[in-house]
Amino acid sequence: MCAAKHDGFSLSDLPGPSPSSLEIDLATVFHGVRDQTLRLAEPLSAEDCGVQSMEEASPVKWHLAHTSWFFETLVLEPALPGYRPYDPAYRVLFNSYYESLAEPVPRSRRGLLTRPPLEEVLAYREHVDCHVSALLAKGPDLDPQLRFVIELGLNHEQQHQELVLTDLKHALSTNPLQPAYLEAPDPAPSKAAAHRWLGCEESLSWIGHAGENFAFDCEQPRHRVFIEAFELGSRPVTNSEFLSFVEDDGYDRPTLWLSDGWAARRKNNWNAPLYWQRRNGSWDVFTLSGRRPLGLEEPVCHVSYYEADAYARWSNARLPTESEWESVAAGLPLHGNFVERGLLHPAPAPTPSNGEAPSQIFGDVWEWTLSPYSPYPGFRPARGALGEYNGKFMCNQMTLRGGSCVSPRAHIRATYRNFFFPDARWQFSGIRLARNAT
Amino acid sequence: MCAAKHDGFSLSDLPGPSPSSLEIDLATVFHGVRDQTLRLAEPLSAEDCGVQSMEEASPVKWHLAHTSWFFETLVLEPALPGYRPYDPAYRVLFNSYYESLAEPVPRSRRGLLTRPPLEEVLAYREHVDCHVSALLAKGPDLDPQLRFVIELGLNHEQQHQELVLTDLKHALSTNPLQPAYLEAPDPAPSKAAAHRWLGCEESLSWIGHAGENFAFDCEQPRHRVFIEAFELGSRPVTNSEFLSFVEDDGYDRPTLWLSDGWAARRKNNWNAPLYWQRRNGSWDVFTLSGRRPLGLEEPVCHVSYYEADAYARWSNARLPTESEWESVAAGLPLHGNFVERGLLHPAPAPTPSNGEAPSQIFGDVWEWTLSPYSPYPGFRPARGALGEYNGKFMCNQMTLRGGSCVSPRAHIRATYRNFFFPDARWQFSGIRLARNAT
Amino acid sequence: MCAAKHDGFSLSDLPGPSPSSLEIDLATVFHGVRDQTLRLAEPLSAEDCGVQSMEEASPVKWHLAHTSWFFETLVLEPALPGYRPYDPAYRVLFNSYYESLAEPVPRSRRGLLTRPPLEEVLAYREHVDCHVSALLAKGPDLDPQLRFVIELGLNHEQQHQELVLTDLKHALSTNPLQPAYLEAPDPAPSKAAAHRWLGCEESLSWIGHAGENFAFDCEQPRHRVFIEAFELGSRPVTNSEFLSFVEDDGYDRPTLWLSDGWAARRKNNWNAPLYWQRRNGSWDVFTLSGRRPLGLEEPVCHVSYYEADAYARWSNARLPTESEWESVAAGLPLHGNFVERGLLHPAPAPTPSNGEAPSQIFGDVWEWTLSPYSPYPGFRPARGALGEYNGKFMCNQMTLRGGSCVSPRAHIRATYRNFFFPDARWQFSGIRLARNAT
Amino acid sequence: MCAAKHDGFSLSDLPGPSPSSLEIDLATVFHGVRDQTLRLAEPLSAEDCGVQSMEEASPVKWHLAHTSWFFETLVLEPALPGYRPYDPAYRVLFNSYYESLAEPVPRSRRGLLTRPPLEEVLAYREHVDCHVSALLAKGPDLDPQLRFVIELGLNHEQQHQELVLTDLKHALSTNPLQPAYLEAPDPAPSKAAAHRWLGCEESLSWIGHAGENFAFDCEQPRHRVFIEAFELGSRPVTNSEFLSFVEDDGYDRPTLWLSDGWAARRKNNWNAPLYWQRRNGSWDVFTLSGRRPLGLEEPVCHVSYYEADAYARWSNARLPTESEWESVAAGLPLHGNFVERGLLHPAPAPTPSNGEAPSQIFGDVWEWTLSPYSPYPGFRPARGALGEYNGKFMCNQMTLRGGSCVSPRAHIRATYRNFFFPDARWQFSGIRLARNAT
Repeated sequence: MCAAKHDGFSLSDLPGPSPSSLEIDLATVFHGVRDQTLRLAEPLSAEDCGVQSMEEASPVKWHLAHTSWFFETLVLEPALPGYRPYDPAYRVLFNSYYESLAEPVPRSRRGLLTRPPLEEVLAYREHVDCHVSALLAKGPDLDPQLRFVIELGLNHEQQHQELVLTDLKHALSTNPLQPAYLEAPDPAPSKAAAHRWLGCEESLSWIGHAGENFAFDCEQPRHRVFIEAFELGSRPVTNSEFLSFVEDDGYDRPTLWLSDGWAARRKNNWNAPLYWQRRNGSWDVFTLSGRRPLGLEEPVCHVSYYEADAYARWSNARLPTESEWESVAAGLPLHGNFVERGLLHPAPAPTPSNGEAPSQIFGDVWEWTLSPYSPYPGFRPARGALGEYNGKFMCNQMTLRGGSCVSPRAHIRATYRNFFFPDARWQFSGIRLARNAT
Repeated sequence: MCAAKHDGFSLSDLPGPSPSSLEIDLATVFHGVRDQTLRLAEPLSAEDCGVQSMEEASPVKWHLAHTSWFFETLVLEPALPGYRPYDPAYRVLFNSYYESLAEPVPRSRRGLLTRPPLEEVLAYREHVDCHVSALLAKGPDLDPQLRFVIELGLNHEQQHQELVLTDLKHALSTNPLQPAYLEAPDPAPSKAAAHRWLGCEESLSWIGHAGENFAFDCEQPRHRVFIEAFELGSRPVTNSEFLSFVEDDGYDRPTLWLSDGWAARRKNNWNAPLYWQRRNGSWDVFTLSGRRPLGLEEPVCHVSYYEADAYARWSNARLPTESEWESVAAGLPLHGNFVERGLLHPAPAPTPSNGEAPSQIFGDVWEWTLSPYSPYPGFRPARGALGEYNGKFMCNQMTLRGGSCVSPRAHIRATYRNFFFPDARWQFSGIRLARNAT
Repeated sequence: MCAAKHDGFSLSDLPGPSPSSLEIDLATVFHGVRDQTLRLAEPLSAEDCGVQSMEEASPVKWHLAHTSWFFETLVLEPALPGYRPYDPAYRVLFNSYYESLAEPVPRSRRGLLTRPPLEEVLAYREHVDCHVSALLAKGPDLDPQLRFVIELGLNHEQQHQELVLTDLKHALSTNPLQPAYLEAPDPAPSKAAAHRWLGCEESLSWIGHAGENFAFDCEQPRHRVFIEAFELGSRPVTNSEFLSFVEDDGYDRPTLWLSDGWAARRKNNWNAPLYWQRRNGSWDVFTLSGRRPLGLEEPVCHVSYYEADAYARWSNARLPTESEWESVAAGLPLHGNFVERGLLHPAPAPTPSNGEAPSQIFGDVWEWTLSPYSPYPGFRPARGALGEYNGKFMCNQMTLRGGSCVSPRAHIRATYRNFFFPDARWQFSGIRLARNAT
Repeated sequence: MCAAKHDGFSLSDLPGPSPSSLEIDLATVFHGVRDQTLRLAEPLSAEDCGVQSMEEASPVKWHLAHTSWFFETLVLEPALPGYRPYDPAYRVLFNSYYESLAEPVPRSRRGLLTRPPLEEVLAYREHVDCHVSALLAKGPDLDPQLRFVIELGLNHEQQHQELVLTDLKHALSTNPLQPAYLEAPDPAPSKAAAHRWLGCEESLSWIGHAGENFAFDCEQPRHRVFIEAFELGSRPVTNSEFLSFVEDDGYDRPTLWLSDGWAARRKNNWNAPLYWQRRNGSWDVFTLSGRRPLGLEEPVCHVSYYEADAYARWSNARLPTESEWESVAAGLPLHGNFVERGLLHPAPAPTPSNGEAPSQIFGDVWEWTLSPYSPYPGFRPARGALGEYNGKFMCNQMTLRGGSCVSPRAHIRATYRNFFFPDARWQFSGIRLARNAT
């Protein structure tokens, strides 16, 4: 038994890898992140862990294995001469999309892998953890490039932690039994703060990550963007507000929609956000703790870009660009609701103490921006397999900002760029409005 | 603990329900069949039991539940006043296609049902078995209609026993690890008997089931068919023979194929039977005991109707009609290889002791016939939900005869009509030739 | 100018090739058939002739060219040494599905061939007609095999004459202008005869074509079929009768439908026969003379096999087998409405003078039978390219009998087997009921 | 006869509407543009004008009608009280995508409209032209808003002029006869200029249209963009250069491709630009004057964004952003090859007289940029139906700049934004490289 289990972590208060912590003790952080992933799978049976409900989602077991595959393939094999893989077949089975490494199993077939069984995947994790621990025992003597790849692997794993919950929610939602991931009491009702418009002057702003903290390649390089004057909504759009759009026939008025959005709405018969269901005249919603009445004061969640855009047009507003968003968020502390509240539900925005700042910019729902996911000026992907991490997805997807209630806290920062196709609804994605300065 | 477990059954020597056994002890047969289904699932994990690899196949767990649903819905609910269903939600979850009962879960989504878990489904089985046992304790006082439905339920369950192995084989085959259901030594090589043509005179034959033994509605009513003189092949086509077709570019010559067959072959890129794979110049094949070299003397298996038809045309022959087949099989004893040999591989045909009779007409591979699956003259489906059992599938499918190495022995009889779409390959389906009398 | 034009033909009274006429003057018949095809295209512009509204339908221009291609490829090239094709490219462009001759243009792309233009195709026809005329001038010295192929080519062309009208009707129906092929007054209303059941004793009947008259290979060989006692409806089902099915929610009751039929009905949102449209509370229907009110006494037309089957089940009846149908039709004269009435609408059945015979078995609507299109016992396709004429379609399609109001009269005979996929609705297909003898 | 025909125009030298010409004589410009559209259709038969070869392309007849529909619906109906539409049905038939006006015919079915015939559509054009002429006779008294809509209608029509040739080229290319739109001699071979990198300093640039000349809403408002230092290629990539990519297995190396690009390349089996075909070891290409040998010195054309992006990555470069492109083009005169050369083939870049400027930035091929088509800061679509002109397409498409050899000269300007989906290849689209300043 090699991997030490650390109690006391929860998804939201897990400290992410940071330069200081890394210098002090990368090993502690490593085990913290790895354990957190296991923690997420704990309430689940092997059957739950094996299911894949759509091509875009992956089984929990696959997430558990793939995050280990990352360390084995990109850390252990290069760093440990003579390292014997746990099972050579896993090189193919648990590759995601690194075409330069081995032809991956088609993503749509990940749910068919009943073998290796869950317990074998857990043993694989332990095997990998043992060997990485041995490397980490070198402490400051660890090769800096290797240290970087381990750090990247931990950030990668944290991304998959969010996907574990997101993908699982979708899978459970397809079951007529509407089962819960975790039983939890409904959150105490509280009232969303009033929506205000925060004015921002035109500026030549520095956008993107700088400094020694970890950031993904797509957050870099830091560069200047000229931003015209604009106004940003003080908080995410609520379910109550979105319901007004629904009741005003927003889903049936083509002129409110982008052309591709209207096509998607028709093809998929959308008439409300994903997981909403009207029953006996009122709306309820599927959550990770089962089906419950729609919380009207909570941020609207599980909408596509198309719905966000149509809602904004209906509101005589628009979505913010990612530069606009970042220029505001960069100056704000990471305060928010995301520590105090329970997991798994977006929380109503509290009345802000400071009348000027957005009351809730981080950590409830991912906020669709008007910006397609494109490379920053001067962007250079890493060499080798890691170069496939982000760059090859920079087409056809839209950038989201801010983090959600299922995002690891370490991933909640002003420069973080999330990205999904504009018709994606299974992510914890919501809406913040913006408008041109008048 | 209610269900008594009976040891000593294997799939092929399980006596199916028959009038005599029923009169003597329907309860014994009931438990025998029910236990056999459990036996088939024994080597499997809950993960294995949950997977669905294509729309036409179902998870093993679903088979376990659905066969119990049949007894609960069609026996216990009507027969036991005040019967409380094990779980009302199962009425929907485990319905297959009985539109008159409840809107079923779409067949393509059966693999998403991680709940109820396998152990719950097993408890559901026990619950159902207990209550049916209580009914069966009435012995001869049991209502004859109820007895009929129980008997039908047992035959239904035996059909699903075959599907358990068939569907599971397909699921395992999609895994790059090519795992085995059961480890088994390769069958000892033995030589197929020589192929001969058995001549049959023209006749007005009685076709279909008569008598008091159980038979499905589609085997009835017994009726007369005029059959022209013909010749029937003495045994199924072997892998060796089919390989000659492959090597003669049979898969690349459109004039050998039906129009729809050629379209299917192109769309699916068929170039050999399902589960065949050429590796380093020789062929191997995926089986329930993993991947092994192709047994040249065994019957070819896992071919579609289209491939069977193309092979026959290439051979200057044709497939037999189901009447031709039955007129020959009706006179033959159920001798065959299927008792002696191990499960799971079709067996080479032994040299027949009797030079006239087919040496292997029952129980190795289902044999595609030239006959679409149509109602017999005078066919009347049962009233109510049972009327959906067979009749509504009598379009677009082809009839197969003879039974396979994974068919329960009780289902191997001259009048039995199996049916699948002509592009189906995951069944244990093979080829017997016929030709017009010269 | 080589081809003599003969006036005075109409589609329904055109004498088809028959042995006597052939002996007397095959040339006259040849020109009669060829001219009739041109006659059908006369009301159409080049634009009308070029359009293809679905994969299964072909442009009129393509029909004009392909029927000429048949004579050029299968008559002129083999028979005339040194014959120079009109344009070698046409060998590929206008092949339909003869894989042994040249890879055809995919059927779905026939509507893209704006070149050659219509006038060029008409010149191609003249060129072919001239050369065939030269051959025919040999009179009785013509090689019998060649005579057979010419006769086949004429029957082939007559099949395409029916398709010209059928495919064009579909194309025009997709135009919001709902244009007419020919303006015509609505048929005078007349009342359908009462529906009666004609009893037929069990019999061993001879089925299929015999004799020297032309028949397709699939109508042969003549053979014996044992037919149980049954009853046949005296006339096709009327629009009025079918409307009762519609109004009784027939399209919304899955237990009335075959499994595949219900899937097709859901996928395609069928709720009435093709070309029906409810407007302001009453039904109208698109016809070759435009949109007009539904004629309640006319035979229902443009239904799929699935709808025919569901209607029959709803009526506590079934469809007849093709043997049953032929056994009745074989004894009947070709009297019917098809000569007197105008083209293009099925006609109400007149009250029969003879109380026993069906009042309308030939020539109003093709009647779906319960019989899949399969080879007759002893069927042998022709050698060479002609062997692809019928045999390769003998899977997945259903047989229709009787001929329709747009069928050339020469094709209306008791043994004629038409065949289409069970979801086809654009043919002039209707319903005749049958039931088991009580 | 109302419309005066003006001779002497060709597509490339047609003066587009400009403020001065408008003030002087909008009527002359109106007839010039309208006649030019007719001129493009002159070499075509009605059959040619009716065909639609893929959903994204439209028939020429439809372009002729839709551009007239624009004037009728958006000019004549609002401006002429009591105006009687030529045919009320055309309001629906020839609407493109203005959801607020009438439900359009699905785009995929435009090729099915054989009625109205071409001559009727030409009469419709004349009718519209007559009435617009009457309006234009008001001269300076014309309502300015109406003047704007007419001007927009002319620019709209010029966009469709380019589509007439682009869509027709695709349709003709599907014909195995490979027919020409116009016979033309192959362009005289000439050598492309050497490729150089033009350095550009970082800048805060004004981007977008300003002034009184016509521009589309999407080119506005003019705004500032901060651009980092970069280098721009001096001319488009040539066929010869692209061939090196092909021969270096560029189409078979997934790491050169965007993720979605690789998926598109696999799904569509791309292995060269559209219209290229390898025959007997050398490449030829389909053009509007038929199939001819590939001109190695010409700009590569008919590549998708994905191919452009992969080529750039293979070249250790990238595509330019649209701001980078515009910042360079804004300072350049509209000199280029597009006047001197014949229509329909991109021309090799001449050696530039000025060593600094790009030798060929306008008018040979549309150049894919790295920029998704998004709204400029402060973008406001017009009110009413015209608001659907551009805005609703601002998602999932990429911006192209520069104009092509089939673009009307009036549309060749530095601020013009063309846009297509990244997998589109039937446009005259090519590649210009850029790279970060070193």
